[in-house]
Amino acid sequence: MLVLSTAAAATNAMAQRSRVENLVMHSDVLNADKTFTVYLPEGYDNSDRRYPTLYLLHGAWGCNTDWTEKGNAKTIADEAIASGRALPMIIVMPDARGQDANYAGKNMGYFNLPGWAYEDYFFREFIPYIDKTFRTRAEKRYRAISGLSMGGGGTAVYAERHPDIFASACPLSGLLDDPLGTTSSVIRFEEFVRAAQQTNPTEFIKNASPAQIAALGSVRWLIDCGDDDYLFDGNISMILAMRAAKIPVEVRIRNGAHNWVYWQTALPTVLQFISTGFAADR
Amino acid sequence: MLVLSTAAAATNAMAQRSRVENLVMHSDVLNADKTFTVYLPEGYDNSDRRYPTLYLLHGAWGCNTDWTEKGNAKTIADEAIASGRALPMIIVMPDARGQDANYAGKNMGYFNLPGWAYEDYFFREFIPYIDKTFRTRAEKRYRAISGLSMGGGGTAVYAERHPDIFASACPLSGLLDDPLGTTSSVIRFEEFVRAAQQTNPTEFIKNASPAQIAALGSVRWLIDCGDDDYLFDGNISMILAMRAAKIPVEVRIRNGAHNWVYWQTALPTVLQFISTGFAADR
Amino acid sequence: MLVLSTAAAATNAMAQRSRVENLVMHSDVLNADKTFTVYLPEGYDNSDRRYPTLYLLHGAWGCNTDWTEKGNAKTIADEAIASGRALPMIIVMPDARGQDANYAGKNMGYFNLPGWAYEDYFFREFIPYIDKTFRTRAEKRYRAISGLSMGGGGTAVYAERHPDIFASACPLSGLLDDPLGTTSSVIRFEEFVRAAQQTNPTEFIKNASPAQIAALGSVRWLIDCGDDDYLFDGNISMILAMRAAKIPVEVRIRNGAHNWVYWQTALPTVLQFISTGFAADR
Amino acid sequence: MLVLSTAAAATNAMAQRSRVENLVMHSDVLNADKTFTVYLPEGYDNSDRRYPTLYLLHGAWGCNTDWTEKGNAKTIADEAIASGRALPMIIVMPDARGQDANYAGKNMGYFNLPGWAYEDYFFREFIPYIDKTFRTRAEKRYRAISGLSMGGGGTAVYAERHPDIFASACPLSGLLDDPLGTTSSVIRFEEFVRAAQQTNPTEFIKNASPAQIAALGSVRWLIDCGDDDYLFDGNISMILAMRAAKIPVEVRIRNGAHNWVYWQTALPTVLQFISTGFAADR
Repeated sequence: MLVLSTAAAATNAMAQRSRVENLVMHSDVLNADKTFTVYLPEGYDNSDRRYPTLYLLHGAWGCNTDWTEKGNAKTIADEAIASGRALPMIIVMPDARGQDANYAGKNMGYFNLPGWAYEDYFFREFIPYIDKTFRTRAEKRYRAISGLSMGGGGTAVYAERHPDIFASACPLSGLLDDPLGTTSSVIRFEEFVRAAQQTNPTEFIKNASPAQIAALGSVRWLIDCGDDDYLFDGNISMILAMRAAKIPVEVRIRNGAHNWVYWQTALPTVLQFISTGFAADR
Repeated sequence: MLVLSTAAAATNAMAQRSRVENLVMHSDVLNADKTFTVYLPEGYDNSDRRYPTLYLLHGAWGCNTDWTEKGNAKTIADEAIASGRALPMIIVMPDARGQDANYAGKNMGYFNLPGWAYEDYFFREFIPYIDKTFRTRAEKRYRAISGLSMGGGGTAVYAERHPDIFASACPLSGLLDDPLGTTSSVIRFEEFVRAAQQTNPTEFIKNASPAQIAALGSVRWLIDCGDDDYLFDGNISMILAMRAAKIPVEVRIRNGAHNWVYWQTALPTVLQFISTGFAADR
Repeated sequence: MLVLSTAAAATNAMAQRSRVENLVMHSDVLNADKTFTVYLPEGYDNSDRRYPTLYLLHGAWGCNTDWTEKGNAKTIADEAIASGRALPMIIVMPDARGQDANYAGKNMGYFNLPGWAYEDYFFREFIPYIDKTFRTRAEKRYRAISGLSMGGGGTAVYAERHPDIFASACPLSGLLDDPLGTTSSVIRFEEFVRAAQQTNPTEFIKNASPAQIAALGSVRWLIDCGDDDYLFDGNISMILAMRAAKIPVEVRIRNGAHNWVYWQTALPTVLQFISTGFAADR
Repeated sequence: MLVLSTAAAATNAMAQRSRVENLVMHSDVLNADKTFTVYLPEGYDNSDRRYPTLYLLHGAWGCNTDWTEKGNAKTIADEAIASGRALPMIIVMPDARGQDANYAGKNMGYFNLPGWAYEDYFFREFIPYIDKTFRTRAEKRYRAISGLSMGGGGTAVYAERHPDIFASACPLSGLLDDPLGTTSSVIRFEEFVRAAQQTNPTEFIKNASPAQIAALGSVRWLIDCGDDDYLFDGNISMILAMRAAKIPVEVRIRNGAHNWVYWQTALPTVLQFISTGFAADR
């Protein structure tokens, strides 16, 4: 749409100054270079202002460019911010790909595996690197996390284990329970499955101490899952566990299944929900 | 729903602590007692926190209790705030009723009439009274205005004449142009019609100086009008005038007409839009 | 809004020719006169066309005028039909009020009680009376049922017991399980509680024979319940039972609680959903 | 998402039996082979049922696979039909690409050009070919048209010139007026510009005879355009012309600009709107 949109380009010059960068950092924990993608909002380059940050996680068989390339995240964020649905923010998209040709296989996922301590990397290296490299507001109140499918599971578990780090957590179509139950044919991804079994976020809530429950209540939760999603029942179990534990949770069940149409239509709500969180109590 | 909702009452105790009060103040300008309605958000009574404020205007033939009694404003505000769609805020519903039995006739409306300087009252007495009586944040950045029909016209004109007072302005189904054109049978409301003719907010924009245009641009505008509203064309004229003057404006045309179904479904968007405004630039 | 909308009245003359009537019929089964409300769509009086029918049930402590007086059902239906969201239809609102001053107490509800065989009345007298009195299309394919709270329970149970009668069933915020669990203080409504205990629609599904499951699958189901509704868990139980039994069900969980804001925003989706059902397979 | 979705694949087997085919037909009018894409709904292969048809047009610099590859049209149609938002239908996506490497340049567009009578091809060859090749219901009542940008202009003009052919017409972000005004830098696409100048659908309405106005009123119109679209003003002009001519038109102005996020979120509404049209008056 290059030429026809020349007039639009002029009109929307301000909004278009947001940008997406695909970058690389070195991880000592993983002994590897790790890619990541970052969205910097309009105005980032014209001020010394600091911004809240959303960590936005991809799903299994995905990588750090999924949200921008398949999920239209830049357009959606630009329009949410320009229209006053969301506050200007930095969006960080990490990379939890596996190491075969389809981003699957060995080392896929957000959890620690033998020889691949991804969760350690994420909290000890990645978040500190982001807070050092970009003008973030590096406090719990200004940091949110969301993600789809396997990244929804990552979102839930990360927020459960690190409730002091995130103000809001929004699992979308999350892989929240033992994936063997729903995906019994997934046998070659042994590490991935084993890790997910060990990090069941619903069990975490059922077994949580009163202090942990209180900490979980300091995170604003939004769980969104389509009524035709094959992970529906796992999401319901998580929601019921949270309600039983009196942890406030916003729930949305919309028409849809496990695909990018659903996640694209979820993202504006996530951006709005976390924005109110960034602004709360001030 | 008294008994069945006992359990719900306990569960939602927090949200239900918001309250609506119908009050009266004396106006020296008008030489009259004027009623108004105020929504105080959950938590208001339990802290010394200060809150942003929305002035929410009723339509012709209405009064200060319309939004709560016909528009479900308390339920909508409670749920918008509890769900993270909006920030906690005070909502002030003034009274611009006329003085016959149907709230019509003499002195109806938001503008100065011979012997009834309502706009003077609003800015010299009412807003100061609110800021003195309730724990508002009495700055432009924390004050918004919205309203329906005649109150949409009031919203537009008040924000045009007092852009230093309001952060956001959201006319809903606004009476924005010469009402004689669309309502030629309205002849007995002479004062109302004359006042509206003199306050055409679209003409205001067309005749605005560069400094005025800049000031109008300091207000965040959202115009929402149903595609079957008999005031549709007047809203379009206002939108086109704003675009021609390069004043940013969010526009929503949804299915619907001039009724409470439309305004109830508009209010959540208004509360969200002004909340992002309250939080902006911080 | 009498005078101002004169122009609108002319423009929308067609849409406004729909009408709502509050009527009475005699029931031999109940040995009583029973009120009901009916919405007749625009054009009904100008043709001999026959229409599909929606039975729209009120909640506990309510009556047949609730949907039109508190739920804006006429406006919502007019606009859904005029905008092409729904097909023209007749909407029938029965009366299941109790017999004390607040529409509560003795004989409240949609089920058979000692000396008050309401369900018998509904299927043996009321539906036949409607089909005889109005130009309905008196076939399963052209008949739908929906309702709120106690009427959501009625919707579910009626569709379960009479799957040959309804094409679509849409319980909204339905009272779907043993109300003693959620409302233990409801002790004076003994009949109501006992009847509801005996008609648990979730247990019906769990105990259904293969033939019954097949029959339930011939009804198009849409279950909608707010995430802050105190009946949330009962709705989830019903949904999980339907999924376990492989009965297709559309599920919507939106932000909201047990109130008319929720039901008003549910109704357009119900009207659209049942309309596609009326048109299916043709 | 190959392996994880195995369970889902089984569950959704029915829905997934829809399919998309990229095909080719020979045009004598154009003296060329023309590609097109067709969506056949679930069940198409298992019956001899006939279906209504939507012609869904791409934009400038696009081609017949845009809606399925960039617009997720298959997923959106599958879910709209499965959830009862839309009736099962055939969706036909024609090819109006230009002939340079970027689908631009010579012969781009939906109108007749010197040596390239595309509109003749569309009505004399393409629609008849579709109706002969697939099990369509080849009547006005069962045929709809929609499209984006240049295809929104095609939608409007085709429905204006052939109101006997289409039941519904839904221009999305339509290029509806003289594109020279908004895109003065577009000088190399001489043919495209000249054709669009000659087919201004707003002028068509302003100049229409009473008989033409009546014919236009036999088409159900839905115009949807984002409030940040650079074609906004042209859409407003068309809407105002239709209102002035008393041609009923549904209007939606949502937040958004000229991009696939907008068109993807428009498509479910289009599918619902045209479905009610397919079912009307029966």
